[in-house]
Amino acid sequence: MKTLWGEGEKKVSKQVFDWTQSFSFDFVLFPYDVMGSIAHIQMLCKCGIITKKEEKILTLAFKSILNDYNSGNLKIIKEFEDVHSCVQFLVEEKVGNVAKKIHTARSRNDQISLDTRLYCRDTVNKIINSMEKLNNIIAKTGADNKDIIIPGYTHLQHAQPVFLSHHLNSYIEMLERDIWRFKDALKRVNILPLGSCAIAGTSLNIDRAFVAKKLGFDSISKNSMDAVSDRDFVIELLSGCAIAGMHLSRICEDIILWNTQEFGWVVLDDSVVTGSSMMPHKKNPDVLELIRGKTGILYGNLVQMLTLMKGLPMTYNRDMQEDKPPLFSSIQTIEKSVSVLGLVFSLIGFNREKIKQSLLDEELYATDIAEYLVKKGVSFRDAHRAVGNLMVYVKNKETSVSKLSKEELKKIHPELNMDIMNLLNPQTSVALKKSFGGTGQKMD
Amino acid sequence: MKTLWGEGEKKVSKQVFDWTQSFSFDFVLFPYDVMGSIAHIQMLCKCGIITKKEEKILTLAFKSILNDYNSGNLKIIKEFEDVHSCVQFLVEEKVGNVAKKIHTARSRNDQISLDTRLYCRDTVNKIINSMEKLNNIIAKTGADNKDIIIPGYTHLQHAQPVFLSHHLNSYIEMLERDIWRFKDALKRVNILPLGSCAIAGTSLNIDRAFVAKKLGFDSISKNSMDAVSDRDFVIELLSGCAIAGMHLSRICEDIILWNTQEFGWVVLDDSVVTGSSMMPHKKNPDVLELIRGKTGILYGNLVQMLTLMKGLPMTYNRDMQEDKPPLFSSIQTIEKSVSVLGLVFSLIGFNREKIKQSLLDEELYATDIAEYLVKKGVSFRDAHRAVGNLMVYVKNKETSVSKLSKEELKKIHPELNMDIMNLLNPQTSVALKKSFGGTGQKMD
Amino acid sequence: MKTLWGEGEKKVSKQVFDWTQSFSFDFVLFPYDVMGSIAHIQMLCKCGIITKKEEKILTLAFKSILNDYNSGNLKIIKEFEDVHSCVQFLVEEKVGNVAKKIHTARSRNDQISLDTRLYCRDTVNKIINSMEKLNNIIAKTGADNKDIIIPGYTHLQHAQPVFLSHHLNSYIEMLERDIWRFKDALKRVNILPLGSCAIAGTSLNIDRAFVAKKLGFDSISKNSMDAVSDRDFVIELLSGCAIAGMHLSRICEDIILWNTQEFGWVVLDDSVVTGSSMMPHKKNPDVLELIRGKTGILYGNLVQMLTLMKGLPMTYNRDMQEDKPPLFSSIQTIEKSVSVLGLVFSLIGFNREKIKQSLLDEELYATDIAEYLVKKGVSFRDAHRAVGNLMVYVKNKETSVSKLSKEELKKIHPELNMDIMNLLNPQTSVALKKSFGGTGQKMD
Amino acid sequence: MKTLWGEGEKKVSKQVFDWTQSFSFDFVLFPYDVMGSIAHIQMLCKCGIITKKEEKILTLAFKSILNDYNSGNLKIIKEFEDVHSCVQFLVEEKVGNVAKKIHTARSRNDQISLDTRLYCRDTVNKIINSMEKLNNIIAKTGADNKDIIIPGYTHLQHAQPVFLSHHLNSYIEMLERDIWRFKDALKRVNILPLGSCAIAGTSLNIDRAFVAKKLGFDSISKNSMDAVSDRDFVIELLSGCAIAGMHLSRICEDIILWNTQEFGWVVLDDSVVTGSSMMPHKKNPDVLELIRGKTGILYGNLVQMLTLMKGLPMTYNRDMQEDKPPLFSSIQTIEKSVSVLGLVFSLIGFNREKIKQSLLDEELYATDIAEYLVKKGVSFRDAHRAVGNLMVYVKNKETSVSKLSKEELKKIHPELNMDIMNLLNPQTSVALKKSFGGTGQKMD
Repeated sequence: MKTLWGEGEKKVSKQVFDWTQSFSFDFVLFPYDVMGSIAHIQMLCKCGIITKKEEKILTLAFKSILNDYNSGNLKIIKEFEDVHSCVQFLVEEKVGNVAKKIHTARSRNDQISLDTRLYCRDTVNKIINSMEKLNNIIAKTGADNKDIIIPGYTHLQHAQPVFLSHHLNSYIEMLERDIWRFKDALKRVNILPLGSCAIAGTSLNIDRAFVAKKLGFDSISKNSMDAVSDRDFVIELLSGCAIAGMHLSRICEDIILWNTQEFGWVVLDDSVVTGSSMMPHKKNPDVLELIRGKTGILYGNLVQMLTLMKGLPMTYNRDMQEDKPPLFSSIQTIEKSVSVLGLVFSLIGFNREKIKQSLLDEELYATDIAEYLVKKGVSFRDAHRAVGNLMVYVKNKETSVSKLSKEELKKIHPELNMDIMNLLNPQTSVALKKSFGGTGQKMD
Repeated sequence: MKTLWGEGEKKVSKQVFDWTQSFSFDFVLFPYDVMGSIAHIQMLCKCGIITKKEEKILTLAFKSILNDYNSGNLKIIKEFEDVHSCVQFLVEEKVGNVAKKIHTARSRNDQISLDTRLYCRDTVNKIINSMEKLNNIIAKTGADNKDIIIPGYTHLQHAQPVFLSHHLNSYIEMLERDIWRFKDALKRVNILPLGSCAIAGTSLNIDRAFVAKKLGFDSISKNSMDAVSDRDFVIELLSGCAIAGMHLSRICEDIILWNTQEFGWVVLDDSVVTGSSMMPHKKNPDVLELIRGKTGILYGNLVQMLTLMKGLPMTYNRDMQEDKPPLFSSIQTIEKSVSVLGLVFSLIGFNREKIKQSLLDEELYATDIAEYLVKKGVSFRDAHRAVGNLMVYVKNKETSVSKLSKEELKKIHPELNMDIMNLLNPQTSVALKKSFGGTGQKMD
Repeated sequence: MKTLWGEGEKKVSKQVFDWTQSFSFDFVLFPYDVMGSIAHIQMLCKCGIITKKEEKILTLAFKSILNDYNSGNLKIIKEFEDVHSCVQFLVEEKVGNVAKKIHTARSRNDQISLDTRLYCRDTVNKIINSMEKLNNIIAKTGADNKDIIIPGYTHLQHAQPVFLSHHLNSYIEMLERDIWRFKDALKRVNILPLGSCAIAGTSLNIDRAFVAKKLGFDSISKNSMDAVSDRDFVIELLSGCAIAGMHLSRICEDIILWNTQEFGWVVLDDSVVTGSSMMPHKKNPDVLELIRGKTGILYGNLVQMLTLMKGLPMTYNRDMQEDKPPLFSSIQTIEKSVSVLGLVFSLIGFNREKIKQSLLDEELYATDIAEYLVKKGVSFRDAHRAVGNLMVYVKNKETSVSKLSKEELKKIHPELNMDIMNLLNPQTSVALKKSFGGTGQKMD
Repeated sequence: MKTLWGEGEKKVSKQVFDWTQSFSFDFVLFPYDVMGSIAHIQMLCKCGIITKKEEKILTLAFKSILNDYNSGNLKIIKEFEDVHSCVQFLVEEKVGNVAKKIHTARSRNDQISLDTRLYCRDTVNKIINSMEKLNNIIAKTGADNKDIIIPGYTHLQHAQPVFLSHHLNSYIEMLERDIWRFKDALKRVNILPLGSCAIAGTSLNIDRAFVAKKLGFDSISKNSMDAVSDRDFVIELLSGCAIAGMHLSRICEDIILWNTQEFGWVVLDDSVVTGSSMMPHKKNPDVLELIRGKTGILYGNLVQMLTLMKGLPMTYNRDMQEDKPPLFSSIQTIEKSVSVLGLVFSLIGFNREKIKQSLLDEELYATDIAEYLVKKGVSFRDAHRAVGNLMVYVKNKETSVSKLSKEELKKIHPELNMDIMNLLNPQTSVALKKSFGGTGQKMD
């Protein structure tokens, strides 16, 4: 195994090479390493550190291996320590000695930070797009079923009727917040670390602003030591993914519940359910369970990164190489979860008959009756107590509110009149909730 | 124990009351609950739901108990389920029946979200202030010792010389990022949830914009179901605290290392170290160890919140009551950690003699010699290899670079000249790193 | 503030004292600190390090303050750094100078490990008792309803009928495993660390075996450096609590589901449910939600301890003081959760009518029909496919299996006969599952 | 894509197949799936469910594909949903229709639990072996350097001198505890779940005890519902790995510190260090940093599994498929970490000169002087204070204890004599610590 120091010394053992290599997972950074390298050598040329001719030769070589990569023609025939040495090797194979000048005024410390930032910027923007698509699908599901009213729950107990679309819109809100949070996080991603070199900067006369502009960075890191030891941007994205995964887990939990035989509100398409090897009748919502279960991956990845950074002395430590597997894993998990959830929603059906049965529960209107009393001048607390008594009365008598007489109502509270019977239906209930953000709010 | 439903039913058992109450920890929300309630009743008055007179009486009562709280005169003589029922009770004690109107068009679901958001906004702004103060202290420490050069480390091995102030500035960068991240998170905190009520909004004609304006909120939640089930803002802050705590743990790790007898770079003031019950000579950096150790609290709190939200069906579930202990704990931990670290830095001394010994290591200048060769036209890789050979040569001969002859240098690489001896000192080394963000960069 | 080193030096600042003190949370160790100290001074006496008279005076004083503690008469009138200095102070107050001999051949490093181990042994044994009580209650619930059959679920979809008691017994199995795991963990708790002193042991001639025997320890730690830096026993208990909490969260999830209006299988007693401040009809299973939610605490505490120990150099570091809040928190959380869950089960009722409706689903018997075919010599895979076709047939025809004719059955599979109709009821289904561990297994 | 239900229905979409498949990671279970299947069909034969002839054919086929697997000749040419369907397919390819009988009285729910348990038993036993090997290497390192004395640390401050071997033995204690814990955990792994089937057991007359004996299980699961929903054994192993990883991280932290230029105590072999792409002199302890960093993986995997099990309703849910990646990852991480750390220790050297410099610190003997006074009848607290004063005196006078006169000693404490000068060397100090577990304890 190759060493990076003077000749005539012992080589690194094979076991150590295998243990320390990152090539088995960081090859995904290949295009970003090439992009960054092109900008870097153009800067070296602009600053007179390499010649125009050298720059041309190298740029051409970089573009050529990137083409091979993009077209699937890249063949990797040996083991590398990391993606950087692979890229270096491929270019050197093409252009020989001039390639020895690439790694001037650059260390793998700032280079890997650059590659990772480019990867993050790219993939997080894709996730944002996927989330927007998912939101469109959910919004369409709501629109397609805009007349459906369901019991809304708190504590998994019937609370008040809401439009199905209002419930679905709450998912959209969660995902919108994820997008917003990702966008804010990207501001801290999109900072150029290259030029920080190993730790102290360089004695060569470089132009970091040039590289930043070439690569579309908003700004340039201000302290070389911080730049090579900072992984906040990774953790912040992992945190964003964890929160997004938590949202997805809640959405899936809802649909899994609604899909039980007891609820029976939704119909999942046969193409998105799976069977049992023993029980012939089974059609299980595995797709949703796996999204929910993979929340664990996202939390675990966040904990991994927080753990590895804890208590590390400044600046770069090799522990930090372990940032990439959790990063790649969380990014891919969110990407696929969002996509497959979109598929489920695009094929979902609703069983109006079963939903109607759930709405027969008169207690769903208890709060409306209390607010009815408030409108008549009763204090809310008295109203609340009166309706509580009404519920107890009905339960003890094993009857229902709709069957009560005027006299019975009056006994419970003098301001209760027979017109409360009009409140006992879902359409009225949702229509009344006109407050901003309420389920009956007019949306345009 | 009181119930919230109809009369004549069983009461909640004492054990259940104790288990479900949150008053033992949510009393810290008292002033926010009062502030929110005042804005709420002013809105109820504006919208004609209570009279001007009622509003006056209630506002006065609220202000009165807030005064008592602020002046430390508030006496709590009974057990409450939560801070809301405590506030309600105190006002009712003062004004009687009119207090029954307060909880109109409001549920504890939206009320607790409001209180928590007000708490977050307030305390996070304080943390930002504390961090800015800490940064000023660190900057002053750097400025007061601006001539000190130390070995910079990667992998906890001597890398290149850097200004002590450059090292300290890397801490400032980390904390600046924390502040930035907190400010972004506050945007998602500063949204009014009140008016979402239990889940569906209300049939009463309320004005949420009025409340938002009164309380200084940037915007108003758009979906009542999301509003009462959202705890993203808590998680995002816990994540910000975890990252900040990680930063603090790294800073402390550095100082603890520098404080070992072997390094001996720093002198901690006797007022910030502690002794041993058995070993009479001990002066331990417990303050720093505890900051480092409390990173665990911050990570644990984040995991707690992520765990409890995972897979919860919409909307509000009582599990979410458990958001407050970790929130309060992380906020307080960061606040105190930042403050006590400031104390340590404000009293820190540096042992220039010991630092000088660490700088005697000639390997610190290896990279400078390589860049010297690059300036003479040698490719960086060849330069790197040549200096590697130089290091091996010196080690094998048990000599030092500064003792080599011109001939020996030339044998290693023809471009090496006796003028490299000028590179072998820390002042020259740092002065050369003029690249933006480098340790020799001119700062104004 | 007091220092532990020579006279004439600066005192620790108040802020540092507040930051480093543990007395605000470690007072719970009081009785264990006293117990350990008594054994310690008896050993010092036995080894001739203190006199018999001194031992008597000190033992008496220790027992006296322990009495005060146990009877609630202990008054703490000043601030202490930790429980050890409080105990020391109280004894010194009683007996004067002789108390200065207590802390011989002992450091707070081994002392705190001792106290914590005694605490763990005591409280974990209590948890084991509570879990056994809970299991008895659950078993009684099963026995009291031994004829109830419910649909068993996989993927939250109807799978096969099972006895309710079989379902409940699965909870008992989980808790039995928790008890087993705690008992194994206690073996690693019950090792005497005292006598390891600060780090190296002592030059005084002590007898650790004597102390171990007095305090009921199984064995004695074998390496003084490991003994003062080991917190495995805390982490292992936190892990046991986390797993137990996970179990409780699953049990609660089941009951919360069964308590929805759509399932309606259980009736929770009014004394264990809570209401809503806005919705007058609400009876929420908050008790269960909080047990589920507190899983987060247990996970968070485990993460906290793992985090704080990560990467700590040997041996004792002050970070480790932070082991106590998560330990105490997890122990108390499990203790209370188990107890309150017992209360819920002791008052639970089942709604046989609603459960019967859930059992009308004929698909619950699909697997029984497949095994029926296997008994006739059909390979399981063919049988599985045939019953799968049967289910599709019935669904497409919008009929039910019980309404099919012999001809229809034969068309689906020649071995299907009208006697499969006998399989279509829950009693038969569970009775057939006689395999060991199966729901129809005879239990004695 | 294949479905598991009746004909004529929609197929699962490709995206759903890709999302739900586990074959990309569970192929490692291949040999265990085969082993379990052989025992299963032998039981089916014994119980008369398949014929002797069928059993022979199937056993032969299973052994044949296992041979192919072991010899590396197994070719997988298509996509499978999971390892079970792959094994089933390969056997069916060999023997045709008789293979349709294999999956009788078995579900993937109990089968995957069986496979995973067999995997755990096998790999954890290997880890135990590796840890024992590592302990032997560490013990040899201590023995080879048994005369070396180093400063022992608490709070990363000089505490008292200890034998290097005593310090190293503390590592052995930690690993011994890991082995003990793993062995206890294996008791809860080694329980047969097979025969629990999907959830309820089976109506076929099977013999679980036969299978348990064949496969070497200690006992048989007692409740079919618990058996298919239990993943405690996975979590317990992940917790054991997390604790073990924490231990490794502490060991690595020590060596990394000792390897700094400032300590300079150890010499790492060139074959186990790595270089820098920019700094030609660098020899970094990456191997150790990566072991330390991978603690994050182990913590993250534990959190992942705890998260995914939290709040799952009984019994099997597809979320649980996600148990395997973290399990495999933690097992492999520990296995490799332990192995590579053994390599580092087997090549480690110690720099006696640098260690001696660290031992020049007279404060290391402060505690010995205090115990010297105790032996003369001074109470420990007075002794502690006197030595504290001695340290202050020496520091203020800028002298050392060894240079003090008898008069100076007497002034500090009348019992201090010139013979304390004999205490001021490491050999005496360690020799005095004869207490059990102390650094001077005679070991045989």
